[in-house]
Amino acid sequence: MPTGKKQIFLGVDPGLADVGFGLVAQKNGKLKIIDYGSIKTKKETAPAERLKQIASRLDKIIKKYKPNFAAVEELFFCKNIKTGIAVGQARGVIILTIIKNKLPMAEFTPLQVKQAVTGYGRAEKRQVQQMVKIILNLKEAPKPDDAADALAVAICAASSLALMSLKK
Amino acid sequence: MPTGKKQIFLGVDPGLADVGFGLVAQKNGKLKIIDYGSIKTKKETAPAERLKQIASRLDKIIKKYKPNFAAVEELFFCKNIKTGIAVGQARGVIILTIIKNKLPMAEFTPLQVKQAVTGYGRAEKRQVQQMVKIILNLKEAPKPDDAADALAVAICAASSLALMSLKK
Repeated sequence: MPTGKKQIFLGVDPGLADVGFGLVAQKNGKLKIIDYGSIKTKKETAPAERLKQIASRLDKIIKKYKPNFAAVEELFFCKNIKTGIAVGQARGVIILTIIKNKLPMAEFTPLQVKQAVTGYGRAEKRQVQQMVKIILNLKEAPKPDDAADALAVAICAASSLALMSLKK
Repeated sequence: MPTGKKQIFLGVDPGLADVGFGLVAQKNGKLKIIDYGSIKTKKETAPAERLKQIASRLDKIIKKYKPNFAAVEELFFCKNIKTGIAVGQARGVIILTIIKNKLPMAEFTPLQVKQAVTGYGRAEKRQVQQMVKIILNLKEAPKPDDAADALAVAICAASSLALMSLKK
């Protein structure tokens, strides 16, 4: 990866009610925050409509910031299969939106994300948020939680790509 | 529902490796088969690419036959959460493709589908296939299994819509 060129990373923390997104730019090995937030859908809205809202809002974010890479957190732990399917559906829609925008995409486990951000795979949520704050030079830890998680995913993507280029 | 007007129903049996689809037309209370088959994606293909293939092929089918209604089978039973998430992702992509084509969509449980087709919610797969064959006046039971299932879902949608119009 040419280090002098600015690269933008989109991180996504999938969900149905809350989809966290975070965008960071990397240039000369330095990370800078661009934007972050949460795409929210309402329980009262029909499931199919919620999926459509997620796709359409994420599509707008991608078209606005034109990231070079996207990373989506993998799901492993769900309360039950019903929740797993519901979040899986949202995740499918997120992945499709990314790939339709011709973005190279990676998937990271929560363990990989924590490892990348805190150097410790079993770190607690609060520790991850504090590290995100420090790495991105923010005054406060980003809120809500899923937006902070998404920023951590974006940081993980940026650092793993930097590692790959070091290996070459 | 005006019974004299031809209505086309798309039924979908979701999956990642095999997505069954079936199209039936209903006119004057009679059902006629239009097309059926299975969208297949390969294990060796990257998960995100498989989701894209499912979306693109289903989109082509919808644009070709222009169904009036779509129905997708609900998932309840999965081997484990990992499978649930994988099939959930495919299901999310299927629902998004349907709703982006502005098709009214319903979801039916396997129980509802069996009930509609065989009059018996606990019917076996083979019984469902035989009933699909009889209802659609086919020489042989449709193959593969997921295509037959998708036709059963389409029949279920057609008959539930007919029931709704009777209730009015």
